[in-house]
Amino acid sequence: MSQGLVSSLFMACKKMQMDFQCQAAQIGLDAAPYAALQKLWRQDGVTITELGEKLFLKASTITSLIDRMERDGLVQRQRDEEDRRVVKIYLTTRARNLKGKFPRFEEHCIEKIKPHFTQEEIQTLTQLLNRLEESL
Amino acid sequence: MSQGLVSSLFMACKKMQMDFQCQAAQIGLDAAPYAALQKLWRQDGVTITELGEKLFLKASTITSLIDRMERDGLVQRQRDEEDRRVVKIYLTTRARNLKGKFPRFEEHCIEKIKPHFTQEEIQTLTQLLNRLEESL
Repeated sequence: MSQGLVSSLFMACKKMQMDFQCQAAQIGLDAAPYAALQKLWRQDGVTITELGEKLFLKASTITSLIDRMERDGLVQRQRDEEDRRVVKIYLTTRARNLKGKFPRFEEHCIEKIKPHFTQEEIQTLTQLLNRLEESL
Repeated sequence: MSQGLVSSLFMACKKMQMDFQCQAAQIGLDAAPYAALQKLWRQDGVTITELGEKLFLKASTITSLIDRMERDGLVQRQRDEEDRRVVKIYLTTRARNLKGKFPRFEEHCIEKIKPHFTQEEIQTLTQLLNRLEESL
């Protein structure tokens, strides 16, 4: 009965990751900077630490990712106006424009699965996944 | 409404992966050989290609993983009795004994989430995840 939950979760996740990489490749990006863009498209102007936490990345990893994205003209570091000790990450115009050209990954997925799920089922799945995460 | 499914899936998966690494570490293994053990505990005596497919690994990656596991005394390669051209992977006695000492990861997870989910909810979640995987 309960056999299969772990495999089902890992398989669904793997499939979504492959789709994610595919979408990233369309913008000419790897998965990591694309994941950062997803978060920044949602909320721009966050600290490196906040962004690292959202992406589950270690301090050293997020720092080198941001270095790379800054070099590629996707983000820029800016000192916070209110607290000059704080450095925040902002999208460049180029990165903001990409948002208009490509749907957010969440929306892309929902469009893809819509014909196969009712709105209620998507809600149920989301809620059960949230509870799963909390209980693990 | 539908916002959040992707994040919820990735977060639940990330949490489960962390738990997976934790369980692997208890046996003194990395995630990759532990994942291979999970599959072989379920079905022993498979070809490298079959195991690679189950683990979503490229031919070169699964080959070097099996090399490493063979060196660590977890598996051995054996020519198939019926078709000598076919090489199958078998667990060593040591690896089989580990199964008795540690629960399968699936069982470990179910035990952990049981207090928070009904049997029916676990089934619903598993089914929805299977359908999600198919529709992506």
